[in-house]
Amino acid sequence: MAKYKTDQDDILFTLNDVLNVSRHEKYGFDKNSVKEILIEQDKWVENEVWPTRESSDAEGVKMTEQGVKVPENLHKATRGYYEMGWFALGMPESVGGTPVPEALAGACRALGIAANTAWSMYPGLTKGAFSVIRMVGDDYLKSTCIEKMITGQWGGTMCLTEAGAGSDVGALKSTAKPIEGKKNWYKVTGTKIFISSGESDLYENNIHLVLARTPGAEEGTKGISLFAVPRFKFTEDGSVGESNDVKCTSFEHKMGIHASATCVMNFGDNDNCEGYLVGKEFEGMQNMFIMMNEARLDCGMQGEAQANLAFELTRQYVNERVQFKQEIVHHPDVKKMMLKMRAMSRGMRALILYTADVIDMAHEDSKYENLLGFLTPLCKSFCSEQGFNVSVDAVQAHGGYGYCTEYGVEQFVRDTKIATIYEGTNGIQAIDYLTRKVLKDQGKTLTEVMEMITSDLSKSEAEFATQKTQFERALGAAQKAIGFITEKAQAKNMSMTLQAAKDFLDLSAHLVVAWRLLSAANVAQSQLTSGEGNKEYLESKIVDYKIYCSQYLPQVWAHSKAIIEAEEDFSLLSV
Amino acid sequence: MAKYKTDQDDILFTLNDVLNVSRHEKYGFDKNSVKEILIEQDKWVENEVWPTRESSDAEGVKMTEQGVKVPENLHKATRGYYEMGWFALGMPESVGGTPVPEALAGACRALGIAANTAWSMYPGLTKGAFSVIRMVGDDYLKSTCIEKMITGQWGGTMCLTEAGAGSDVGALKSTAKPIEGKKNWYKVTGTKIFISSGESDLYENNIHLVLARTPGAEEGTKGISLFAVPRFKFTEDGSVGESNDVKCTSFEHKMGIHASATCVMNFGDNDNCEGYLVGKEFEGMQNMFIMMNEARLDCGMQGEAQANLAFELTRQYVNERVQFKQEIVHHPDVKKMMLKMRAMSRGMRALILYTADVIDMAHEDSKYENLLGFLTPLCKSFCSEQGFNVSVDAVQAHGGYGYCTEYGVEQFVRDTKIATIYEGTNGIQAIDYLTRKVLKDQGKTLTEVMEMITSDLSKSEAEFATQKTQFERALGAAQKAIGFITEKAQAKNMSMTLQAAKDFLDLSAHLVVAWRLLSAANVAQSQLTSGEGNKEYLESKIVDYKIYCSQYLPQVWAHSKAIIEAEEDFSLLSV
Repeated sequence: MAKYKTDQDDILFTLNDVLNVSRHEKYGFDKNSVKEILIEQDKWVENEVWPTRESSDAEGVKMTEQGVKVPENLHKATRGYYEMGWFALGMPESVGGTPVPEALAGACRALGIAANTAWSMYPGLTKGAFSVIRMVGDDYLKSTCIEKMITGQWGGTMCLTEAGAGSDVGALKSTAKPIEGKKNWYKVTGTKIFISSGESDLYENNIHLVLARTPGAEEGTKGISLFAVPRFKFTEDGSVGESNDVKCTSFEHKMGIHASATCVMNFGDNDNCEGYLVGKEFEGMQNMFIMMNEARLDCGMQGEAQANLAFELTRQYVNERVQFKQEIVHHPDVKKMMLKMRAMSRGMRALILYTADVIDMAHEDSKYENLLGFLTPLCKSFCSEQGFNVSVDAVQAHGGYGYCTEYGVEQFVRDTKIATIYEGTNGIQAIDYLTRKVLKDQGKTLTEVMEMITSDLSKSEAEFATQKTQFERALGAAQKAIGFITEKAQAKNMSMTLQAAKDFLDLSAHLVVAWRLLSAANVAQSQLTSGEGNKEYLESKIVDYKIYCSQYLPQVWAHSKAIIEAEEDFSLLSV
Repeated sequence: MAKYKTDQDDILFTLNDVLNVSRHEKYGFDKNSVKEILIEQDKWVENEVWPTRESSDAEGVKMTEQGVKVPENLHKATRGYYEMGWFALGMPESVGGTPVPEALAGACRALGIAANTAWSMYPGLTKGAFSVIRMVGDDYLKSTCIEKMITGQWGGTMCLTEAGAGSDVGALKSTAKPIEGKKNWYKVTGTKIFISSGESDLYENNIHLVLARTPGAEEGTKGISLFAVPRFKFTEDGSVGESNDVKCTSFEHKMGIHASATCVMNFGDNDNCEGYLVGKEFEGMQNMFIMMNEARLDCGMQGEAQANLAFELTRQYVNERVQFKQEIVHHPDVKKMMLKMRAMSRGMRALILYTADVIDMAHEDSKYENLLGFLTPLCKSFCSEQGFNVSVDAVQAHGGYGYCTEYGVEQFVRDTKIATIYEGTNGIQAIDYLTRKVLKDQGKTLTEVMEMITSDLSKSEAEFATQKTQFERALGAAQKAIGFITEKAQAKNMSMTLQAAKDFLDLSAHLVVAWRLLSAANVAQSQLTSGEGNKEYLESKIVDYKIYCSQYLPQVWAHSKAIIEAEEDFSLLSV
């Protein structure tokens, strides 16, 4: 298999030259510190995480009498991740973290995700649970959990899904009954499925954030509350207490992420499971969304990061493998595939890092919150799906070798696929995007994004005249789709509105990704003109943008047509 | 997991009503006999093959002291396949076969392929090798092998690939030296890789068709000859002889088709491997193409058939799984996904069965040989790729369950992927299609196909007026792409010609598939008008055509734009 390689040039150009993350002054970061941190994390990932990827996939998780055990080689990587301070990167100082610009924190996190996605789930879920406790937990919960979690002694999970409640979280049946005389403590009962990192021997305790219903709660999501349910009971001195009647009864055998334990978790089989209320009663869904929004961005990152790494490995292969007396990269079909893979992979990275930067913008000015909400489902859905597609192309470019386990490429296909499903399927993302992020504010955020695109297009250099035409045609096609959907929504035809959702999300994401590549190409062009920077790299950024415009933007037109020309209300058709 | 289900209505409608395969009078088949055979084979596959699928995937092949062993449950299925006469279906009477229309034989073969693709590789490769021996083997070879192979005592393989010769078959280094005093016998030496069914305990002997170079042969494909190399030497009484110095030294661990042994085969390590010349010296490639063209159609079938089965399983799931208080099929996004999956799956089936029918047409009138050559790479590339995509959608529609091994759906994704790679990668198919099937005859066959499409469009009922417009727009976009490519080819810009190949193949395949669905919709419409047939099914055929036109034909425009608007010669760009 090819050598681990990160396109550091592209990450640093995006962070420093396109986004200029140093402008968030509160962090006191300059371009050099951005570079140093990124390079250091990359080196650590290469040495500590990447070597665990294939063997941990082959080994998988195991059930033992002591519970679920992860592949042995994940222990060292996990310990190192905490000890080196990588887990704490991007977290506030108040909880022992190292604040850095969000986009830098994201870029660093993406490296570990790319190198072993299954492994990254353990600290990833812990980070999500940690954020919820930090933001809405009360003083008791924070004082009990924060230090244990940021140091990696304790892990965390999110427990939403039940057998009859997947996308429909509101249908869940787990219950929580107040314990008399123990304020905020509840007896929790229920069975949760598909719980990533549900149990492992990586942490001495696990804090499960469990959604459950309190007595008399109304039906649906409004009656749901959130509880912190430790695997082992809390003790006053912080040591590991007795069992809290939380048990992983089995785990799933899956297509990929074999090293990530996807558990069936039983809470309170012996009526001895206690959970502590997180935030207010009945605000469980909105509090869980703190974690879910982070997790959705991370899902997009799973697609983006694995795509970028798969591209780098494939780049090496096609430049070495000789057929017909030349390296196969020189065969036009392979060249085109590689150019498209690069444009898509870097385009996704540009979208993800921009979105991470918008988190900082939203902290500084709440007017950006809508933009963040708008971008989140695009990142989650589009990058998970296109990340999968790039992984599939990586296999294809490797030919028969790509299909063999030994080369480690097919693992990207198996590992990326789950990101299109969990944290809300991409179909759910599309509905969220169309109804809550576009229609709910009468297209205000969408219009603002369109205006930013148009503004950057007008700034684009004369050299990009062809691309400007291509982009404007795509924008025109998008406008037609928006017109059609708006008409159906105003006529309250929800079926025809929603059947357009996925195409509309994809169409929007193509525009936003092309826009991010345009921004990058504009910067690259001006650096080339002034003679700054690495010429070869900068030229490749111009190629990325051109390739995206000619090879991917036609999809905007195709999605628009698919929306508009669906003659019928599909709900009237049977399958 | 859902219950095995075949869309018999659609297969029989395609065979009997659209293609009318009974018109090939030499077979003496009427519509009822077509139906009986199909239903009988389907029942057998359901009972004997389908139950082996998941367990044989979990078990995989094993290396033992006696060589490669396949999962135990494949033995019974394989024996039954021969004993019931399914292997001999569609073969000439002269070799002990049961002649039936090619499209019927194909439809039957597809059932076994769908139910366990890995298993189907063993009789599948044997069938290919059998065809070569039957068609170009001399009397000695035929009298030695034919009966043994059609009864399933002996198997067969094709041995092309070597470590340095994958797509570039002409680079192979295996050698064959004439044995003095033994006419047509050669000493064979070399190592072949990626040999499907290379070794197994299903057959008492295996006939390897090996490409090798004779002394003094010229470089490239013109210097290649074909040899029948048995695993165990032939004996006069037909019993299994001593080892022929053929050894499987290892097999690949792969993403999917775990029950199919993908072998590294060593020939002549001890200088004791003898092969018998098949056909004439230096005509190895063209003779191997007898097998490869069959295998390419079967690759398409692997995509098509698995897609259709995956669709049927998913259809059951979405009609049973309840979320938000209704079966998820009623959620607009799921409904749309299902409608698209059905249109694509049935569209691929229509293409495959039509192509199989063209084999019969070409036997009856050689003018159809070009059409067959034209359709073969479309079947192979498009159906393998879209079959994979439908499988991915099947996982998606199953949500988290789709990702779990237990449901058997993710296996479709893993098992279909290889079909885009072996038998000539889809990139190679695209080059074959564009250069040999389109440009070489100055677009004559392509023009004939376009004319057949136009003719059927003009016959299409008034009800399909919208689709006619959509189709004509797609044809217009295709014409522009053809114009662009022709211009580049005439200017001898091979790089820009070939970089268009894959998009052009996909564009062409969309048109041909839409055309086959149009033909079916025309027949369905006229049966509906006259009150014949199953109304619900016939209406679904009209929906398939409409969905294809509105949801997939926009891709023709997108591919055309991707071809035309690629500003640059990609060979000048580096990745």
